[in-house]
Amino acid sequence: MVRTILVIGAGKSTSYLLDYFLKKSDAEQLHIKIGDLHPEHIPNIFSDHPNCTVFALDIFNDEERKRAISEASIVVSMLPASLHIKVAEDCLQLKKHLITASYVSKELKALDAEVKKNSLVFMNEIGLDPGIDHMSAMEVIDRIRDAGGKMILFESFTGGLVAPESDTNLWNYKFTWNPRNVVLAGQGGAAKFIQEGTYKYIPYQKLFRRTEFMEIEGYGTFEAYANRDSLDYRDAYGLQDVLTLYRGTMRRVGFSKAWQMFVILGMTDDSYTIENSEGMSYREFVNLFLPYSPTDSVELKLRHYLKIDQDDIRWGKLLELNLFDATKKIPLKKASPAQMLQYILEDSWTLQPDEKDMIVMYHKFGYELNGEKKQIDANMVVTGENRTFTAMAKTVGLPVAMVTLQILNGKITTPGVQIPITKEVYHPILTELKANGINFKEFEVPYLGYNPDSVAS
Amino acid sequence: MVRTILVIGAGKSTSYLLDYFLKKSDAEQLHIKIGDLHPEHIPNIFSDHPNCTVFALDIFNDEERKRAISEASIVVSMLPASLHIKVAEDCLQLKKHLITASYVSKELKALDAEVKKNSLVFMNEIGLDPGIDHMSAMEVIDRIRDAGGKMILFESFTGGLVAPESDTNLWNYKFTWNPRNVVLAGQGGAAKFIQEGTYKYIPYQKLFRRTEFMEIEGYGTFEAYANRDSLDYRDAYGLQDVLTLYRGTMRRVGFSKAWQMFVILGMTDDSYTIENSEGMSYREFVNLFLPYSPTDSVELKLRHYLKIDQDDIRWGKLLELNLFDATKKIPLKKASPAQMLQYILEDSWTLQPDEKDMIVMYHKFGYELNGEKKQIDANMVVTGENRTFTAMAKTVGLPVAMVTLQILNGKITTPGVQIPITKEVYHPILTELKANGINFKEFEVPYLGYNPDSVAS
Repeated sequence: MVRTILVIGAGKSTSYLLDYFLKKSDAEQLHIKIGDLHPEHIPNIFSDHPNCTVFALDIFNDEERKRAISEASIVVSMLPASLHIKVAEDCLQLKKHLITASYVSKELKALDAEVKKNSLVFMNEIGLDPGIDHMSAMEVIDRIRDAGGKMILFESFTGGLVAPESDTNLWNYKFTWNPRNVVLAGQGGAAKFIQEGTYKYIPYQKLFRRTEFMEIEGYGTFEAYANRDSLDYRDAYGLQDVLTLYRGTMRRVGFSKAWQMFVILGMTDDSYTIENSEGMSYREFVNLFLPYSPTDSVELKLRHYLKIDQDDIRWGKLLELNLFDATKKIPLKKASPAQMLQYILEDSWTLQPDEKDMIVMYHKFGYELNGEKKQIDANMVVTGENRTFTAMAKTVGLPVAMVTLQILNGKITTPGVQIPITKEVYHPILTELKANGINFKEFEVPYLGYNPDSVAS
Repeated sequence: MVRTILVIGAGKSTSYLLDYFLKKSDAEQLHIKIGDLHPEHIPNIFSDHPNCTVFALDIFNDEERKRAISEASIVVSMLPASLHIKVAEDCLQLKKHLITASYVSKELKALDAEVKKNSLVFMNEIGLDPGIDHMSAMEVIDRIRDAGGKMILFESFTGGLVAPESDTNLWNYKFTWNPRNVVLAGQGGAAKFIQEGTYKYIPYQKLFRRTEFMEIEGYGTFEAYANRDSLDYRDAYGLQDVLTLYRGTMRRVGFSKAWQMFVILGMTDDSYTIENSEGMSYREFVNLFLPYSPTDSVELKLRHYLKIDQDDIRWGKLLELNLFDATKKIPLKKASPAQMLQYILEDSWTLQPDEKDMIVMYHKFGYELNGEKKQIDANMVVTGENRTFTAMAKTVGLPVAMVTLQILNGKITTPGVQIPITKEVYHPILTELKANGINFKEFEVPYLGYNPDSVAS
């Protein structure tokens, strides 16, 4: 009997997800129904497939939404995170399993008891980050514990970057995902984490100056700045007693130091709008944030303000963005500084159709075993094929697709509103990801923690 | 016939206000009723006066509040700004004039038509800043315009500082007003102003590094950092076409550069709380914001992090605050970094009972007259007598008291929800302030604006 997988919302990240389902559709007897507000945007390679139906779906239309869900065997919601709850409530009422790649909201978590009572699986946070990070981390943590080890350090870093062969600018960066999130990264509160048992707090104005370095063989050195939420997974991972807990975002070395210029100038501010933004030149935009001078150029004012020498690579990075160009204009009406900066960056940092992105992930696991301190480092690199089949879409979409089929086939059955931190979930998914070229390399390294004294011991 | 002046709320700033009323009470036939939540805190010099009655008033008790207002001839509200609206609504209903020293809220402004219809005067923003700044600025602006001049520049700066004779620390600063406002100064959005016709924006992370200097004869040099709201008075002052509009807060030179250390460290953040703040030492507090190191001292880490040499005066300023003391503890539960910093600063910066504060105000008026660019600078210095009779209480309280009597005596009659920018109001008040030692010195200076080219012309 044919089973219907309903995919709600078909954005950027669904290419691999749909591809996976359709490739398996004959053998697994699947029909894929894609409901989207703009079904005309869905590529023909999917919509023309005999096992696929595409239809217009306004998720705010209760009747349409409920009908589509009632006709499905299982539901995948790829909507923006805030919209999942409507779908989830219907899934509960109509007794359908639900899969999302988003963080579990409080509203969704509140459904847990009812979801369990109905033996439903509501699987969330099963994309890349959150998703592959949870699964790959818990696989190692469980292994360390099973061997009698005690976790003392966990650090985890993820980055969405440009692949080396498409890395053609001084920033070693192009937008491969939502540019707005990149411009606003780190705002909204201090980053909090624990280092060697001490709480640490980094304000936004220092976030991009407190980077940590890491090396991936064959790919060189990366840096990471702290995420806001390092302590959030403490309970989920059972790391209440760990001495060091740190999560971060990976960039190529030098990105953060250069990005700090935008932070200090105030160009990433999204809290107010510039009245006369429309038609403003890149040069005028820069000058908004510099002191007035009747004689000095915008260039010299900026160099002096930020104390940058003319042979500083950061200066080259600014020039590369055409930041001092008086002819290039920003067409945005009443835009915030962040929106205007995003426009300027997209002008330089947009991935071309044939260019490739790259996902990097790096974990550090510090533990004590038989009185000895040890450390395992693990890293993953995934390179995209082009601007449609990106590494981002692959690493987000494949785990979602795989878990959907596992649940549909009754292989994953433990009910509840959950995230993929149990062996029942991560073991089959990591195994299948590996078969698809998404896998971690592990290394035993000396335990350093943040304590050089440990090296001698 | 005796008139009753109802003063609601008798905080720090009311010493001169009450003193003024009581000194005039026999001649003017006044009875002063002071309603406060804690009447026991009101000094005996006021409560024992035969023309004064003190009573407990909970302004959230509608009946009590309405009764007190109905029995008054005129009402002065010295409550926190957000609470004026309750009093204002009663004053409208019971047909009483109202005076406050606070900014006009939208809710209050909305009563304007009704207030006018009832021929009532609701006078606001008639303390120091806002208050004396409005009056002293409009007096000069009107004079320039009456002579045919066209305003092209207006800058205005105010500071609440410590008097030279009580200035005993490296920061040249002590708290003379609400310490919390000082710690949070500049937060909540970029500072906006106009310089020579160009909009300028300063983010919080650069606010204390974009200072402007000014000299007051006999008092030396001061600096000022930008207020958030420089453009707010553009319409009220009729300065829509002015090329430069800038408002700022005055400090002694070097304060802002040192304060920037707290900003960059993240110590002024009030958006989150430190779980284990209670009992934390000053030293541990500092270490929250520094990278972990098993070998380096908190001192060295901070000097390196902020790039401060050991002979930098900023280093001395930190030592003076006992910031690295491991024995001094912060007793606050679940406090924000800003609250913890405030505690540490109050430990050093509290005005002693016999110490004196000082208010400084500095205006610059640039204008064009007969094709020539000219400038008038005006400044005011007021020194307090001690910790009770402060310059702050004098400059806030006296204008409020004076305008109350003027309105009560029918000298100021133009009705409406207003601020003191008309000659009817500022002329008598500035005249009487002068007689009380609060006056401005004016100087004609060459018009500089921000354009050195103008010097030659």
